[in-house]
Amino acid sequence: MTAEIDEQPDILARLVEQRATIAGVARAIVEKPPRFALLAARGSSDHAALYAKYLIEVLLGLPAGLVSPSTTTLYGAHPDLRDVLLVSVSQSGGSPDLLEVTEAARKAGARTVAVSNTPSSRLFEVADLAVDIGAGEEHAVAATKTYTATLLALYLLVDAMRGGDGSAVGDIGRLAHTTLRDSASGVARAVDRYRFADRVVAAARGYSYATALEASLKLAETSYLHTRAYSGADLLHGPVAAVDEETAVLGLTSAGHGGTAMRDVLGAVAERGADVLAIGSAAGDMPAALRIDVPETAEEVAPILEVLPVQRLALQLSLARGGDPDSPRGLRKVTKTR
Amino acid sequence: MTAEIDEQPDILARLVEQRATIAGVARAIVEKPPRFALLAARGSSDHAALYAKYLIEVLLGLPAGLVSPSTTTLYGAHPDLRDVLLVSVSQSGGSPDLLEVTEAARKAGARTVAVSNTPSSRLFEVADLAVDIGAGEEHAVAATKTYTATLLALYLLVDAMRGGDGSAVGDIGRLAHTTLRDSASGVARAVDRYRFADRVVAAARGYSYATALEASLKLAETSYLHTRAYSGADLLHGPVAAVDEETAVLGLTSAGHGGTAMRDVLGAVAERGADVLAIGSAAGDMPAALRIDVPETAEEVAPILEVLPVQRLALQLSLARGGDPDSPRGLRKVTKTR
Repeated sequence: MTAEIDEQPDILARLVEQRATIAGVARAIVEKPPRFALLAARGSSDHAALYAKYLIEVLLGLPAGLVSPSTTTLYGAHPDLRDVLLVSVSQSGGSPDLLEVTEAARKAGARTVAVSNTPSSRLFEVADLAVDIGAGEEHAVAATKTYTATLLALYLLVDAMRGGDGSAVGDIGRLAHTTLRDSASGVARAVDRYRFADRVVAAARGYSYATALEASLKLAETSYLHTRAYSGADLLHGPVAAVDEETAVLGLTSAGHGGTAMRDVLGAVAERGADVLAIGSAAGDMPAALRIDVPETAEEVAPILEVLPVQRLALQLSLARGGDPDSPRGLRKVTKTR
Repeated sequence: MTAEIDEQPDILARLVEQRATIAGVARAIVEKPPRFALLAARGSSDHAALYAKYLIEVLLGLPAGLVSPSTTTLYGAHPDLRDVLLVSVSQSGGSPDLLEVTEAARKAGARTVAVSNTPSSRLFEVADLAVDIGAGEEHAVAATKTYTATLLALYLLVDAMRGGDGSAVGDIGRLAHTTLRDSASGVARAVDRYRFADRVVAAARGYSYATALEASLKLAETSYLHTRAYSGADLLHGPVAAVDEETAVLGLTSAGHGGTAMRDVLGAVAERGADVLAIGSAAGDMPAALRIDVPETAEEVAPILEVLPVQRLALQLSLARGGDPDSPRGLRKVTKTR
């Protein structure tokens, strides 16, 4: 997991260089413009899909939704999917439920795009179009490099669909390197502070909500922490009642609308005694006990960087707590559910 | 909260009697059939919206998605919403973010339907069409009767849109009464068992996933339990690593495809030592330490009944733990977020 975290700057830089290939897929999509987008994924890829949902709604002005695979796999729903773009996101390309959803969607009239790290997978055969995220084989059970590469591939795809040239991520490899280097001491302090933490809540708004979900999953699967993620708005709608002095709140706060909207949320939980760790390029402005800075970028690409210290935190916390982040108990690399 | 839980059988029976009004709204929608559906909500209403998403996809064959309000309220996204049906669900009808989303959607070409307990609300003015769930004023902060009435109203709406006559819920008031009566002793046992529980995971698949989310929220907001909900499939994709002997798993297991698919999931968590409480009409078939039975219905209406013992459990656990379920710390009835 350490090695795969460290590979990310190079993988991201390489993917940006290959953006022409992704732009080709984007051109094929916009030749017959979709009116609605659906995204299908599980696990970490589902968080990448949520990120893409925000990109599609905000940057493309296209309504979008996340697929509940069980409506197809358990209930055999057959929605009319003409004019729909289905984006299936899967690191392995091998989840039976995603294959079933993708095949059913294609039959129901959708254009289908697979985004995966495994170009030899069944998913690439089944989908009309394919984006290879090119992260190289991932050995650790906890996805790291495939997660950030998927985010970047989805950004490049959506950006090309609106005629962009990827300029907001031109420097992403270097920025990822800087992020990993400069966050090391902050991560080490956070590991000390959360060595005995039992309750962790991750929160964010907007694009970074995907990062909060991914942070929660990473901490749960590597450190067995009992974590949960909330959109900052939903947190104030009830769950905040369970936040107290025993709770560590990990607030993803990058510069921009999402981060700004988090200031009040973090203020509210800090007032209840929660221990706030702010991560992101706007961390300096937040009411927090600890902060981990991340270089500033366009808000919509911040999730690619801000997750890097989170991955390191999950890894090192797992080690500090006596776990084995490379083989968490009870997990396999490919989970086969229907 | 006790009184409002007990009112539910009568409220549900009354709403079924008024199904002709809801069928009128359904007729107005299908006169110009939508091609996609979007649902907007926060808190408990968001769980009702997720239930409706399954209904719309499976029973109507219409692709559907949940709105992320922040794409409108924070980022000012302007998607093209012609041929889109937007269903805004809000007990109070007063959330500023939902009003903003509904107004923006209407301007962007969507047909908008408000589902609310407050016919005098701004939401009813803003939307094209409106469904009054008629649950009477709700005083407790934790939504109970407005939640089940919203589920039933959404079911009646979708059922009428497909030309149904609501026969699957004809008897729902009586069944709700039976459920509350017959689950009392099971709930009392569960309260004893979870008096000192610290980690609770709620899990389900299909329609009942909404109930798992609602169970998690109810337990968090009334009993300050650190809970989280997973779709049974997602649970096996990573978070299961954090499930151990210290974890209580509340499995929603109603007869049908969703409940059947839960048997393996509950088997997997039981094998890890988790303490399983199965709630639903298929609870008897599940590997569980405790079971709470619920009368069997069509699978798609089970969420209306199976949440009733969950509400009681949240209420009584809160009391047993020395809390005040009527005024949880730090919560107000209407949360104003944008």
